[in-house]
Amino acid sequence: MYRNRNGLLLVVSGPSGVGKGTVCKALLERLETMRISISATTRPRRVNEIDGVNYFFKTQEEFEAMIEHGEFLEYMQVFGLNYYGTPKAYVEEERRNGHDILLEIDVKGAMKVKEVCPDAVTVFIAPPTMSDLKTRLYGRGTENEAAIERRYKEAFAEIQYLPKYDYVVVNDIVDRAAKNICDIIEAEKSSIKRNSELIAKYSEEMNEQ
Amino acid sequence: MYRNRNGLLLVVSGPSGVGKGTVCKALLERLETMRISISATTRPRRVNEIDGVNYFFKTQEEFEAMIEHGEFLEYMQVFGLNYYGTPKAYVEEERRNGHDILLEIDVKGAMKVKEVCPDAVTVFIAPPTMSDLKTRLYGRGTENEAAIERRYKEAFAEIQYLPKYDYVVVNDIVDRAAKNICDIIEAEKSSIKRNSELIAKYSEEMNEQ
Repeated sequence: MYRNRNGLLLVVSGPSGVGKGTVCKALLERLETMRISISATTRPRRVNEIDGVNYFFKTQEEFEAMIEHGEFLEYMQVFGLNYYGTPKAYVEEERRNGHDILLEIDVKGAMKVKEVCPDAVTVFIAPPTMSDLKTRLYGRGTENEAAIERRYKEAFAEIQYLPKYDYVVVNDIVDRAAKNICDIIEAEKSSIKRNSELIAKYSEEMNEQ
Repeated sequence: MYRNRNGLLLVVSGPSGVGKGTVCKALLERLETMRISISATTRPRRVNEIDGVNYFFKTQEEFEAMIEHGEFLEYMQVFGLNYYGTPKAYVEEERRNGHDILLEIDVKGAMKVKEVCPDAVTVFIAPPTMSDLKTRLYGRGTENEAAIERRYKEAFAEIQYLPKYDYVVVNDIVDRAAKNICDIIEAEKSSIKRNSELIAKYSEEMNEQ
């Protein structure tokens, strides 16, 4: 009631293998008011996908017009082929409706979002140890050793971005990590910078008396 | 395990009548690792009080020597008579032992503590509305109307310090306010500034491989 009604924009990153998908899933289960951000993309729709649910499907011309008009919080082109991006209007509307928005995104995308939207809360999900991360990458059993070692090096490179995030959550136990992110959201909603209207509210009341 | 082991210094303020004593009590019940700060004072020990438990009892000469040596996070002299102060050494030792320390203190004391100890987390407990605060002040039934009106004006003056705090917790329901402070503590422990050693830890591990 006393709180700023706008939802938070929560940006979550972490190296592959750290289990951020699982943590985000647990987080969405805990927080009813949280919505996952829907990306726009130019890649073809698959048969089981619904426009506006899984993605906003766009033609290349549409997507490039949106870039032109500054309609993305961030976007990227994968292998010079398909575009993926986070539409600003969608995120802003959800937030105005009081929904917290979860954006799971790589380190470079996260940095862009923080630049465009400084009130975004950025969380880096980190492994308990590097060797734990390596074990998890091998454990997935879907890639050969060279590919895994490459991912491992990439993971370490991503971890260098850690100091640029607001928070770090170590994923030792999924439920604990998810609860930790919930705590961060609650704390952020009590931060002074998100409650600047309070003083004015008390003053108004004093003047009316 | 991965976290900085040092405890937090949590500074809580709020106007009289807001119920901060009740919130702090509920907080201490929730958090086993939290200790309440013990003040030093020159006022005489009462029969049921224990030195080092209720207060550190000091003579005026001892207290003034401690001021001289900069041994207080903050101190004050009430009506030019008795001194009260927060001993730096006690707080630091508890924190080194991993205990979070709760310091319930007025706005001016809180500002001094934040200055000396910038990593302190400051929380302002605020009333849902000013009229709610007035109702609570009258509800205590221990003072006459003039005294209550004076307290009410003082409360409004204290509320002007709100923007200087890190967080604001509105005490509408005591348990919710206490939980909210717990969330703040958990979030702060995950903040990047309190986990700067993590990167070094991962790098060390990579170098050893």
